Amino acid sequence: MLPWEGELAGRLDREVIDSALLRGNPLGDPHERPLWVYTPPGYDAGAATRYPVVYVLQGYTGHVAMWANRTPYRQPFIETADAVFATGEAPPCIVVYVDAWTAYGGSQFVDSPGTGPYHSYLCDEIVPWVDARYRTIPDRESRAVSGKSSGGFGAMITPMLRPDLFGALATHAGDSLYEYCYLGEFAKSARALREYDGDIQRWWDDFRSRTAFTKEADQTLLMILGCTACFSARDDGTPELPFDPRTGQLRPEVWERWLAWDPVRMVDRYADALRSLRAVWIDAGTRDEWFLDLGAAAFRDGLARIGLPGEKVHFAHFEAGHGAIDYRYPMSLAWLAHRLAR
Amino acid sequence: MLPWEGELAGRLDREVIDSALLRGNPLGDPHERPLWVYTPPGYDAGAATRYPVVYVLQGYTGHVAMWANRTPYRQPFIETADAVFATGEAPPCIVVYVDAWTAYGGSQFVDSPGTGPYHSYLCDEIVPWVDARYRTIPDRESRAVSGKSSGGFGAMITPMLRPDLFGALATHAGDSLYEYCYLGEFAKSARALREYDGDIQRWWDDFRSRTAFTKEADQTLLMILGCTACFSARDDGTPELPFDPRTGQLRPEVWERWLAWDPVRMVDRYADALRSLRAVWIDAGTRDEWFLDLGAAAFRDGLARIGLPGEKVHFAHFEAGHGAIDYRYPMSLAWLAHRLAR
Amino acid sequence: MLPWEGELAGRLDREVIDSALLRGNPLGDPHERPLWVYTPPGYDAGAATRYPVVYVLQGYTGHVAMWANRTPYRQPFIETADAVFATGEAPPCIVVYVDAWTAYGGSQFVDSPGTGPYHSYLCDEIVPWVDARYRTIPDRESRAVSGKSSGGFGAMITPMLRPDLFGALATHAGDSLYEYCYLGEFAKSARALREYDGDIQRWWDDFRSRTAFTKEADQTLLMILGCTACFSARDDGTPELPFDPRTGQLRPEVWERWLAWDPVRMVDRYADALRSLRAVWIDAGTRDEWFLDLGAAAFRDGLARIGLPGEKVHFAHFEAGHGAIDYRYPMSLAWLAHRLAR
Amino acid sequence: MLPWEGELAGRLDREVIDSALLRGNPLGDPHERPLWVYTPPGYDAGAATRYPVVYVLQGYTGHVAMWANRTPYRQPFIETADAVFATGEAPPCIVVYVDAWTAYGGSQFVDSPGTGPYHSYLCDEIVPWVDARYRTIPDRESRAVSGKSSGGFGAMITPMLRPDLFGALATHAGDSLYEYCYLGEFAKSARALREYDGDIQRWWDDFRSRTAFTKEADQTLLMILGCTACFSARDDGTPELPFDPRTGQLRPEVWERWLAWDPVRMVDRYADALRSLRAVWIDAGTRDEWFLDLGAAAFRDGLARIGLPGEKVHFAHFEAGHGAIDYRYPMSLAWLAHRLAR
Repeated sequence: MLPWEGELAGRLDREVIDSALLRGNPLGDPHERPLWVYTPPGYDAGAATRYPVVYVLQGYTGHVAMWANRTPYRQPFIETADAVFATGEAPPCIVVYVDAWTAYGGSQFVDSPGTGPYHSYLCDEIVPWVDARYRTIPDRESRAVSGKSSGGFGAMITPMLRPDLFGALATHAGDSLYEYCYLGEFAKSARALREYDGDIQRWWDDFRSRTAFTKEADQTLLMILGCTACFSARDDGTPELPFDPRTGQLRPEVWERWLAWDPVRMVDRYADALRSLRAVWIDAGTRDEWFLDLGAAAFRDGLARIGLPGEKVHFAHFEAGHGAIDYRYPMSLAWLAHRLAR
Repeated sequence: MLPWEGELAGRLDREVIDSALLRGNPLGDPHERPLWVYTPPGYDAGAATRYPVVYVLQGYTGHVAMWANRTPYRQPFIETADAVFATGEAPPCIVVYVDAWTAYGGSQFVDSPGTGPYHSYLCDEIVPWVDARYRTIPDRESRAVSGKSSGGFGAMITPMLRPDLFGALATHAGDSLYEYCYLGEFAKSARALREYDGDIQRWWDDFRSRTAFTKEADQTLLMILGCTACFSARDDGTPELPFDPRTGQLRPEVWERWLAWDPVRMVDRYADALRSLRAVWIDAGTRDEWFLDLGAAAFRDGLARIGLPGEKVHFAHFEAGHGAIDYRYPMSLAWLAHRLAR
Repeated sequence: MLPWEGELAGRLDREVIDSALLRGNPLGDPHERPLWVYTPPGYDAGAATRYPVVYVLQGYTGHVAMWANRTPYRQPFIETADAVFATGEAPPCIVVYVDAWTAYGGSQFVDSPGTGPYHSYLCDEIVPWVDARYRTIPDRESRAVSGKSSGGFGAMITPMLRPDLFGALATHAGDSLYEYCYLGEFAKSARALREYDGDIQRWWDDFRSRTAFTKEADQTLLMILGCTACFSARDDGTPELPFDPRTGQLRPEVWERWLAWDPVRMVDRYADALRSLRAVWIDAGTRDEWFLDLGAAAFRDGLARIGLPGEKVHFAHFEAGHGAIDYRYPMSLAWLAHRLAR
Repeated sequence: MLPWEGELAGRLDREVIDSALLRGNPLGDPHERPLWVYTPPGYDAGAATRYPVVYVLQGYTGHVAMWANRTPYRQPFIETADAVFATGEAPPCIVVYVDAWTAYGGSQFVDSPGTGPYHSYLCDEIVPWVDARYRTIPDRESRAVSGKSSGGFGAMITPMLRPDLFGALATHAGDSLYEYCYLGEFAKSARALREYDGDIQRWWDDFRSRTAFTKEADQTLLMILGCTACFSARDDGTPELPFDPRTGQLRPEVWERWLAWDPVRMVDRYADALRSLRAVWIDAGTRDEWFLDLGAAAFRDGLARIGLPGEKVHFAHFEAGHGAIDYRYPMSLAWLAHRLAR
């Protein structure tokens, strides 16, 4: 492999959707959104074949153009995904790279008055748009969603909310067990906000006025502000922090709104949807900085508890932290491709 | 100051109490316990003067003999406490160094079927013992309790439970806001227990069979096992972990037992007791590894909320982590000494 | 700014050079090499205007396609560089993005039997190639070189070796004071090589056989192997480590070969070349993980010692580590653009 | 084992020596020095038996009274050393706990105009003093020196300088391979001194004016100032830093004075002395923060190179960092006890 570029055996279309749902979103983010659609080798030759589809979601602060980024000694997922099909390792699928970026760096793939209806955008606009323009098998049994980190979270919750649309998922280090992945960030945020009189809006104004990420707490505060906008915005869109910014003390009723979005805690509420899944890939690195290896194990245990048969689940802990685990994505893609209906 | 030893202007008696309460304690720890009692300069000369008393509690894994430890460029607290009185910086007090060591490294100064009745030992045995043998002012208005870390926790809860005995307290980085100081340790424990099939008892057997603290997780697991024995032992003494050791997932009913001991959460339940205090010193380092600076601020806010007048509270954040903050102890000792009744 | 893409006011040509010098290089790396050439706004309109040129070098493991990578909340340097000219902040220049990637992740921009003649490739092939195809001012007074990390190193040494070609430079956290930036890595390497019987070739075989950077020591060992190939290869191209891999003990004669490439130590040997420079930008983050802030200060002191007038030097320490300092690049570009002859 | 105290089977005498050599030492440190002498079980009963002696040296900032410090779940070395003899694990020895504290926290056990003649104090005053007052076997074949960290350094160099006195040694993580253990500290020191205008004397004044170790760089700067006083003081006692404090750049002639004290580099100069040793214990933790595991391996290789037979050397790497390795001391003590002549 030469490092500078890779050729695809399939084809990548860089599309734009004009979203009706995202028009007038509260952060003023564009309603014309990029969408990248990959068709596997043979797609253009075959006239009638229809394909399963895997929708891919990104982690926090990810946007779709970053899928083209190149790192040394590794290929972008677009290329390693292509290789899964080009080598015949797995039956061909369409792969859709979703963009749900917001001014806060992400949407968590939920509908929120704080950011916009990104869940609906995915389910009610992107999916029909793809089905209308590509030779998909337009059926939940042939449709999966996958992602890493916040994208893994999206991959867990979307089929719970819309089992009519998605019949399989893959989550790599997906956000879960919120007491472990978020509370430490709350504590750090409360400390960092001392410099801003406990007012995260003042930090946000500061952040936008200078080069991003030149202060140590920027990453943490951005993520906390963004997730607050996703999980606990007021009806008027104002993000309401789940903790007292001066002491870090939890605001129980707001924190409950967050916990209602914890995939581990959602399992029982969405047991029917989850039991209907044909394939669930769960993995995480054993040293994940947000303890998402624990969340992964708890999610797996939850699926077992509600009765999803073990043969439908692939679970793995692997030796890694949270970063640089993109080499896991083609593994779950191949696994899903084998399990989607054809 | 020469580094090797320091002379006291007052006197330190190294006593032993034969505790009736600790006989037959579940861990088989000694019921004959050391107790160090310091009398200030002038105590032996004066025949009739009676003195306020400050009881000092230690952090986790501390035992009373460690007060004699010497570190470079600093004096032991026994000597800096003595200096507070020898220099006339504060009016004289008796200082009592309490030992509440257990096989697990600590007792959290509570009564528990998992460790023993250490709270009662302090309140119903040590206090009367001291009052009977030393010229104390045997009154809550003249009696304070102070400590650091777990000792700071003990200093917060003991006057809540026994306002009849204690009228003042000082807490340095005392355990509080359990979601921040403990949950991260649960997560680390769950990971560390992978090596022991999720069985903390197997770790404990291993720990006792080899040199202590030669495995990275020893400190964390010891503290979690010990606090479990203190906060959530079954009636038969068996420690019941507040989380599933395989996934880290909280066991809500057990975790609630822990939260019932969170000083921040106890404030409202013990509002009358707390409002009766004449002096409360609260401090913590701004970089405390267990976020006890947040707990300190939340405890202060709690006291304000229930109506303890601000002039009775001394609050400080100082630039430090959790360790090596013994230089704060003589500050709070002097402050308490000025505020105890004479 | 929208995150997905940026439009350039100028033009970026993605070219390929067929290098005669790199043919048959020892690592079997391609001799057809990418080269990106940026022409500023107005270039295409003006028929006769000629422009100064700034050559940009990358850090270790960088290759030219990575300049297109997008990160959240920041624009790629290609766009921030374009903005320098588009806004009129600085007079227009041509900017050339050089690629000197090797199988080991870099070439340090030197000629070496271990990697290939990358210094000569830059000076004797790229520069003439650009001058022949673009309306440059083909003169040292109008030609600068800049870079970060290993690229900053390249920017320091290239004008020393070829003052006939380059009259200005900018180094951001450039490798220097080798006792601080490299020795710690030697120590870590010696430890990491225990797993490979002290044989870095065995690590290299392992590294190429699996997903890169899944072992903690990969980054360190790659950089040490690569720099060894650059600085102390034998005539037959074999990299000769500057330390005994079993103990870390320095091999003085090999280490001397490295030190001969320390920019700080080169200052006196190349005093005439350095004194002839018209502009030198030096900066580094105060928390640079490789202590390159010290190297930067020492290089500045060296320039003062040999008599380069202070007004020709811009020196800055800024609050940052080694990473994510790309926002500094347009600053030095604008500064150079003002100082190059027109 | 109860945590509060331990009883010795042998006897520990806490003595004081009035040192003629240390009178008028440059730092004004006491010339009356503590010395602790341990005699093994049976010593007092037996009238005629004479014993080998092991002299024990401490690490930087250690003073003799710290041997009595207690830590949780471990016994002080004084007690674990006693147990070596009480259990019959090894033949009885006298153990001498040496104090070489200075105002800078240590002496490195060398003679220096910056601190005082601590090497001579050990060899020419302590050893004769002990031989005169205790039933020692007053012979090099029966006399060993051991220590950890700076004490391990002392244990390596003292027999090199005085093979007439010492015939065996044990070094735990002893200072060596100075490029790895010291250079990183120089770099950190140069950074820390920015706050003091590059003047370490200003830091020293600050350090003495406030509570020690409340600034992050205190530990590093103290050690560097102290070692400078030991290794590169001018004749008038002024410490001369081995680096330019503004840039960290090495001052080669001063750095050479340090390197002349690197045990690894001393091996060839003192080959005869080292070859005469009857027993050498070398160990260090594989994660030692100062890379002393590398120094240990290099020292071992040096001994092999000069021809010390392998059976006279015990070498071990063990899984640990630099701290909390006191459990290794009784191992080397027992090993030495078996190898000293009787």
